[in-house]
Amino acid sequence: MTLDSTAGTLALLRGLRAVRQLRPDPLPEDALRNILEVARWSGSAGNRQPWEFVVVRDRDMLRRLSMIEGANAGHLATSGAGIAIVIHPEVPDLDAYDEGRLAERILLAATAQGLGAAVGHFTGPGDTWAASGEAKRLLGIPVEFVLRETISLGYPAARLERTPNPPGRKTLEQLVHLEHY
Amino acid sequence: MTLDSTAGTLALLRGLRAVRQLRPDPLPEDALRNILEVARWSGSAGNRQPWEFVVVRDRDMLRRLSMIEGANAGHLATSGAGIAIVIHPEVPDLDAYDEGRLAERILLAATAQGLGAAVGHFTGPGDTWAASGEAKRLLGIPVEFVLRETISLGYPAARLERTPNPPGRKTLEQLVHLEHY
Repeated sequence: MTLDSTAGTLALLRGLRAVRQLRPDPLPEDALRNILEVARWSGSAGNRQPWEFVVVRDRDMLRRLSMIEGANAGHLATSGAGIAIVIHPEVPDLDAYDEGRLAERILLAATAQGLGAAVGHFTGPGDTWAASGEAKRLLGIPVEFVLRETISLGYPAARLERTPNPPGRKTLEQLVHLEHY
Repeated sequence: MTLDSTAGTLALLRGLRAVRQLRPDPLPEDALRNILEVARWSGSAGNRQPWEFVVVRDRDMLRRLSMIEGANAGHLATSGAGIAIVIHPEVPDLDAYDEGRLAERILLAATAQGLGAAVGHFTGPGDTWAASGEAKRLLGIPVEFVLRETISLGYPAARLERTPNPPGRKTLEQLVHLEHY
């Protein structure tokens, strides 16, 4: 990469924030396709690729998903599209680790294209929230699969005023040890 | 971002691969610092930031860690530096998910700067490998913390000849459902 694009990528990586105020306008097809391609190439332990994606653009379905009691995905209602991450469960720790890698890439691929993105949560540890079951029922996802999250995508509703260094993050001095803990 | 840097970032996201053939040359201080800053700003559930990092550059320690029986981190031996990810355990699923997000960012921040990076594994699900205990002992990490992985960083040992589309990945048609599973 050139120096400029390296700096831009590092800024993107450092600055990634959830954007929950989204406009319901449709996403460009190529932007959505780029996001799905990035998702497709995400790494997973043993190249298991233990996932499938349900792309939801139907406004009624987005609204119904957003209103499921006990979920935390209100921003789906005004998103341009949502991606439900369907996991084929094998090894819970490993599945969750790989899903984290995947989700991070999707958020970055959206943000790199000027879109906003935010994770909507449908379950907690061990797939234990009833909200997940209700979302699986609405989307026709087999009950034996895990649906931890949807990712809301859309144009940001307002110009993003990013605080470069929002409070609450630990310092490098608190986080980093040299050579030895 | 400009169109060029957007395309570059998408290519980076799509093309990220582990690089296990590394040179032991020291890393530039600013490259390492950029990686640690990206790590520091990684998102986590409830902003818990349940991690600390041990940066290892001592060649003898890198070699000893790389040779721990039962681990899978041979590439640490010739890396320029390794970062051990220390997790303060709270909720296993959530910890693993957030660690996946973090690891992906570290790999991307290294790759964006022309470095190679690969994950070395010290434990499986539930922190069950003896290799993790031995690595914690060597690094002085309290036994109650989780050490799943180190990340090897370094200049690639050979010019990277990337296959743009290595075999074995599922197609979008296999992965994506529209509106409904």
